[in-house]
Amino acid sequence: MSDMTRVALDAMGGDNAPREIVKGAVEAVQQRKDIQILLTGQEEVLKKELSQYTYPEEQIRIVGATEVIETAEPPVKAIRAKKDSSIVVAMKMVKNGEADAFVSAGSTGAVLVGGQVLVGRIKGVERPPLAPLLPTLKGVSLLIDCGANVDARPSHLVQFAKMGSIYMESVIGKKNPTVGIVNIGAEEEKGNALVKETFPLLKACPDINFVGSVEAREIPYGNVDVIVCEAFVGNVILKLYEGVGGALMKKVKQGMMSDLRSKVGALLVKPALKATLKDFDASEHGGAPLLGLNGLVVKTHGSSTSREVCNSIIQCVTFKEQKINEKIKAAIQKTHEESKESE
Amino acid sequence: MSDMTRVALDAMGGDNAPREIVKGAVEAVQQRKDIQILLTGQEEVLKKELSQYTYPEEQIRIVGATEVIETAEPPVKAIRAKKDSSIVVAMKMVKNGEADAFVSAGSTGAVLVGGQVLVGRIKGVERPPLAPLLPTLKGVSLLIDCGANVDARPSHLVQFAKMGSIYMESVIGKKNPTVGIVNIGAEEEKGNALVKETFPLLKACPDINFVGSVEAREIPYGNVDVIVCEAFVGNVILKLYEGVGGALMKKVKQGMMSDLRSKVGALLVKPALKATLKDFDASEHGGAPLLGLNGLVVKTHGSSTSREVCNSIIQCVTFKEQKINEKIKAAIQKTHEESKESE
Repeated sequence: MSDMTRVALDAMGGDNAPREIVKGAVEAVQQRKDIQILLTGQEEVLKKELSQYTYPEEQIRIVGATEVIETAEPPVKAIRAKKDSSIVVAMKMVKNGEADAFVSAGSTGAVLVGGQVLVGRIKGVERPPLAPLLPTLKGVSLLIDCGANVDARPSHLVQFAKMGSIYMESVIGKKNPTVGIVNIGAEEEKGNALVKETFPLLKACPDINFVGSVEAREIPYGNVDVIVCEAFVGNVILKLYEGVGGALMKKVKQGMMSDLRSKVGALLVKPALKATLKDFDASEHGGAPLLGLNGLVVKTHGSSTSREVCNSIIQCVTFKEQKINEKIKAAIQKTHEESKESE
Repeated sequence: MSDMTRVALDAMGGDNAPREIVKGAVEAVQQRKDIQILLTGQEEVLKKELSQYTYPEEQIRIVGATEVIETAEPPVKAIRAKKDSSIVVAMKMVKNGEADAFVSAGSTGAVLVGGQVLVGRIKGVERPPLAPLLPTLKGVSLLIDCGANVDARPSHLVQFAKMGSIYMESVIGKKNPTVGIVNIGAEEEKGNALVKETFPLLKACPDINFVGSVEAREIPYGNVDVIVCEAFVGNVILKLYEGVGGALMKKVKQGMMSDLRSKVGALLVKPALKATLKDFDASEHGGAPLLGLNGLVVKTHGSSTSREVCNSIIQCVTFKEQKINEKIKAAIQKTHEESKESE
């Protein structure tokens, strides 16, 4: 049983819930024998969804939760009021040690608040960052933080850099990952007050491979592995990435369909183009972990399909196997001791 | 003479100076009879460059400036120390009324500092924003502010919204342009401290067509005309736009060249694709104006070629004809009166 990764899955969250969430759960257990899924949500609905599939039934268990938290609800209030919601029920299982991880495509706000209030932070972690993987020309980079904590302080960003480095090294397998801080110029003296204060702290940090400022222009080229920024900027980066990519592909398609000659060409180009562009699709890379909590919390995109849900579930196995939280605890503990020594 | 737009052009600034700058000046006067260019820089060098072209010679005058401000120089120091630089000499001509506008592809920092210190702000303007046009699926949107003022206050953003609206309406010809504030969610209660404070101020502003929050994802689709944000976020948006676009096009090309079938297709698709993508190329839209100064200051991209320099010069004519600065003065004045009344 201890070799199993137990994932509490919010079956009611996201634009395509419960259909795609349930399907993603089924796909995950069809692929892996070491995953146990605890599917939280309205029992009758989920039973009906599951009845469509053939899968190893002992690997998926429905855990009843009558309420649903909607995306538009104020998160703090929703988490407090809807104690029998699919999110709260699932998170409590992580808190109580009944599940190792939690995955949701539901309200980002509710997941972030629930993560802090219900699952709780690792001792010493000031703020848990949301850290999605961005596709780049060289593979993926980790964008940290991206939505959890606006108006962050320099010490938060230093912790983000450390936690992000651990994740990139242990889960993604990037040895000694490079760390950069998002800035509006390459020079150390550039930036806003937050960046100017954080830069020397990162430079002085012995546990990370800090390479200095990274301008937003360079991010898609993948020269920096861990991209540190405060959440407002991170959110803008993540969403603009998606927006420019989508708009540009629309433009490319329009261009290819503008006359007969191009239409013929488009037919020839399409298969190879599709395969190449798949690498640049964020949904291929699973959900974004909320790091620094007593258990893994993964937020997948609201529009997730079964593929993304399945990828996010499988990601939890690596996270558990690699003992990420033990590593984060050790890193944070070490920082505390260092700062005591320097006092 | 009063029908002429007199443009002081920094011939020494930018990656391709002086060659492309001088060429851009020649192209501008070849196209328009109503432009007078004052080319600032090293006299001998510029004479030699100009000697390659045939053009109406009375429309370009060389104004000697022996020094050059490099991009890496600290801007405040450079503006103070290099009094005979192409930037300082040109800006002083705007200040003295010898030129209507200033165009440079040189150090952004020096242009921003020089704009404030040498050209000076319009009375009542708290901070002059840099406002580039972003290509979108529907045309262009104005991104304001984008590099001039980090750590801005809510009152600055309100002025940006007003100045941006005037520019979009008068120079770009968009009637009653919509204004949005960059935010991390659509709801009014979302955002960091700056956005939360600014949102109600914009909502209460009678002179602009405020439509609420705009998420970064939506920007490339062009549903909002004037995109208000503080400079750090604006700089990230501008540069990431460029980065994602460039990386994705590289990926598209790779995809098209991956096998023989695709290579044939690529040949057929290429001309139509190129024409469509031209619309999504920021360099087609001229430089970014630095608004709210006693004269027009335009910053073009450091890697500008003659086409962008020429477009930026021609943009100055519309700016002058449309009396943008008179309109900005009136709008700022009106705000002062309104805030006095409400006191």
